[in-house]
Parts: sequence; C-alpha cells; structure tokens
Amino acid sequence: MDFSKLDGLIPAVIQDDESGEVLMVGFMNDEALALTKRTGFATFFSRTRNTLWMKGETSGNRLQVVRMLVDCDDDTVLVKVRRLGDGNVCHTGERTCFYRDLPAEGVV
Amino acid sequence: MDFSKLDGLIPAVIQDDESGEVLMVGFMNDEALALTKRTGFATFFSRTRNTLWMKGETSGNRLQVVRMLVDCDDDTVLVKVRRLGDGNVCHTGERTCFYRDLPAEGVV
Repeated sequence: MDFSKLDGLIPAVIQDDESGEVLMVGFMNDEALALTKRTGFATFFSRTRNTLWMKGETSGNRLQVVRMLVDCDDDTVLVKVRRLGDGNVCHTGERTCFYRDLPAEGVV
Repeated sequence: MDFSKLDGLIPAVIQDDESGEVLMVGFMNDEALALTKRTGFATFFSRTRNTLWMKGETSGNRLQVVRMLVDCDDDTVLVKVRRLGDGNVCHTGERTCFYRDLPAEGVV
C-alpha cells in the first residue's frame, strides 16, 4: 500500500457487503490497516483526535470485515463489511453517513 | 462542504448507480466539485498532475452523475454514476479500480 500521498493515510471506503450501500469513508494509517486485517474489524485513524479507533468499540456497532480490495494504484482500500449491533453506522444514528442529497443542477 | 481537512480536497467515492459496485475513489477540490455539479460529469483534481480532469474526457468513458450524496460531517461525497463509453472505469482496462483482493488473516 502507498501511504505517501496523504501523509501516512489512505481512504477506506466501507461498503455493506449484502446491500452494496456505501456506509462511510474513514482513513487508515499502516497500523489501522494492519489491525483491521488482523482483527477482522474495521479500525481507523482519527485525523481530528489523532488516534486509532475501532469503529463500534463502545457502541457495539462494529463493522466485521467480509472482504478487502485494493485499488489500481495501491492508495485506497474498499472494505466490505457486515454491520453488527443495531446496524447504524453513522454517529447521528443513521444507517449510513451518506444520508443527505447534494443537489446539482447538471444531474439528469 | 469542508475542504479544510485535506488541504483543499475531499475524497469522492464513485459508485455504479445500477450495480452498486464501487468503481473508484478520486479527489475533488471546490472547483472540481462545482464542475461535477454543473456539467453532470465526474471531474476530479489530480494530486499527481496538479490539475483538473474530467474522467473519460479523452477515452469517452465518462461518468454521468445520477445522484450525489454528502456525508454527515461534510467532508466526503458519494457520486452515483452511469458508466458511459465502454464502461471500463480503470486505466488498466478493468471495469472498476478495485479488482484486486487484499488478503487478511482476520477476515471470516
């Protein structure tokens, strides 16, 4: 993996393995990626808190990794997951972090 | 949108609107996002070439925006698209940039 383009981080796209829904995007450093691979639970690096965090460690809404894919230039991972706990991924209580439309005049 | 966390950029996840497949992740600055919204075709900022580029402008494999969503903290967009041209999004000729598995010992 190439962590050089974003100061040691890569984006990690979290996708529901069953529904195909994109649930969130987090960032991983090499340690977060290694922990994700070893534990089988999605773990990120928080840019605001400057620390590692396993998603759902306190809420129970962990993301169990089903499959991981890497992109063509090794700087992004796609993590297909099973939602544990109540299945709500977003801290707002929504199932996905992408719950708001962005209006765009050119969209057909 | 909050462009401050990544020096003026936000990640843009490109998802096939029909199949749900995640096709690629690119980065947008405010201009690329405005162009994407105005033209209805996904446009990115290339970090390596330091320039704007409309995906598929030369190959014809443009990505027609069907819907855009923003995440809970306004720093990532999800762009649902229809694949034009031959439908292959990756520069390697694959349909998606995520065509390689990342083996992980903890994955069930």
